[in-house]
Amino acid sequence: MRYGVGVDLGGTAVKMGLFTSNGELIDNWSIPTDTSKGGENILIDIAKSVSVKLAVKGIDKKQVEGLGIGIPGAVSNGVVDKCINLGWGEVDVKKELGTLCGLEVFSGNDANVAALGEYEAGSGRFYHSIVLVTLGTGVGGGIIIDGNIISGHCGYGGEIGHITVNPGETESCNCGKCGCLEQYASATGIRNLALKYLEESDEDSTLRSLGDDVTTKDIFSEAKNNDKIALKAVDYSMNILGTTLSNICHVINPEAVIISGGVAKAGDFLIDKIKPSFDKGTVYIDGETKLCLATLGDKAGMYGAFYLIR
Amino acid sequence: MRYGVGVDLGGTAVKMGLFTSNGELIDNWSIPTDTSKGGENILIDIAKSVSVKLAVKGIDKKQVEGLGIGIPGAVSNGVVDKCINLGWGEVDVKKELGTLCGLEVFSGNDANVAALGEYEAGSGRFYHSIVLVTLGTGVGGGIIIDGNIISGHCGYGGEIGHITVNPGETESCNCGKCGCLEQYASATGIRNLALKYLEESDEDSTLRSLGDDVTTKDIFSEAKNNDKIALKAVDYSMNILGTTLSNICHVINPEAVIISGGVAKAGDFLIDKIKPSFDKGTVYIDGETKLCLATLGDKAGMYGAFYLIR
Repeated sequence: MRYGVGVDLGGTAVKMGLFTSNGELIDNWSIPTDTSKGGENILIDIAKSVSVKLAVKGIDKKQVEGLGIGIPGAVSNGVVDKCINLGWGEVDVKKELGTLCGLEVFSGNDANVAALGEYEAGSGRFYHSIVLVTLGTGVGGGIIIDGNIISGHCGYGGEIGHITVNPGETESCNCGKCGCLEQYASATGIRNLALKYLEESDEDSTLRSLGDDVTTKDIFSEAKNNDKIALKAVDYSMNILGTTLSNICHVINPEAVIISGGVAKAGDFLIDKIKPSFDKGTVYIDGETKLCLATLGDKAGMYGAFYLIR
Repeated sequence: MRYGVGVDLGGTAVKMGLFTSNGELIDNWSIPTDTSKGGENILIDIAKSVSVKLAVKGIDKKQVEGLGIGIPGAVSNGVVDKCINLGWGEVDVKKELGTLCGLEVFSGNDANVAALGEYEAGSGRFYHSIVLVTLGTGVGGGIIIDGNIISGHCGYGGEIGHITVNPGETESCNCGKCGCLEQYASATGIRNLALKYLEESDEDSTLRSLGDDVTTKDIFSEAKNNDKIALKAVDYSMNILGTTLSNICHVINPEAVIISGGVAKAGDFLIDKIKPSFDKGTVYIDGETKLCLATLGDKAGMYGAFYLIR
């Protein structure tokens, strides 16, 4: 039997999966990400944890085809230029982690790697080309065409959260620009919209009783109950998202657009909200681009990291 | 010596080029496109013209590696589904033209093929990935990454003219949607903007004396002379184009964006007008994406068609 290891390196936790060479996940676990001291322990901790797991399972490293890792930053030839979430400057992940763990290392940007995971093992496995959109604290994305990640000239392929959707916006996005998709379609963006609508109107809303504790989950849950303020925020946000996704379809005409991330837990309700503007925007090119939910949840990263080895 | 033939099939003319196998254009000519009788003579005319040319040059068909052809419609596996400009319904170009001319035929969408031409032999030859934007009667586009055309699931890759840039627009685009890039950044779109501004204001403008005969060329020429109405139309149009191109860069992060088509004859003035909003939009991902003019002019299609053979 041969194996592979998939690692999803995040700012809070490192999620790891042990796979058989045919892609079956046989174990998964996680360790905290130690971002102290410029993140100098991160790769050491990963290498140790993987070595211990293999030893416990009685797997010799010679049986392991490699280790794939998704990293929250732009990656080029195994080298990360800078990764603020991890405290890293330039780090040669391929070389350093390879030396530490004695395995061949394959690396990629986390959003792209998650897209590869959904493409190979999730809801993207039926399609030749997909765009994965991750709606979480921010908005991320990854594009896979015929099994290849479109990582871009400088590793910014699929950075769709920073598409300008409202050039007239005066509030700044985290990136420094104004009017990015992320400002409207991320969990944070939807919450900000709802808070704004609550402040601007006297409309009754269950959200008022939650005050500052209101979450995006609450907003979707109340929108499903026809709360007008919650619905207004969701409709506005998903209308922008649908149009933007249709625009992306005019660029690369993928077979499917797949929605993932915390916000995607709203399920089919979310798809129903995105679909009208998405269909309206894509009518010219193709009514056949599928719009669906991701299925691997927070394991997409480790699956994709495993498939990097291939 | 070995050869290849590149054919750029347009609604008015068929432009053809004879190339040596290393990409040197040794002859080029054109014939009218006969769109009568549902375009049934088009492929016959092309096959005859190519055969005559090869005979005149004393080239045996065995010395010809193939014939590439760019077609103004979506092409999948050599089959065109429908092509209104040519009067065609479904046509198996690869098979029919192959039989008629006795050469192996390679086909693609015209805008994608033109992009391949600029990528291989024009201003794109210095880059690994490009977006070619064609500003003519409409707005077309083609994307090449590592030598591969991104043709998309249904042949609509690079159809950037129908990206929605103004969801609030009430006038219809040719495609039936409202607010497409093509409505603002095509030659027609820029002219419509100028005519609208002339009607809406009493501002002095040299364009007034031209009346309905005003062309997009006039508008650019007067914009260079600081005519306020002309400048307003050019600025508005190129501001939208720059932002849209920056958004495309967030999707595929290409090394260069190349502007071609009739409007590109405005030269560096055009680039200077696109650049501010393009740079503003791409600041987060990469200041290093080049923005430049195409160099092959109306020969990009025949060059690209030749490179399809490769």
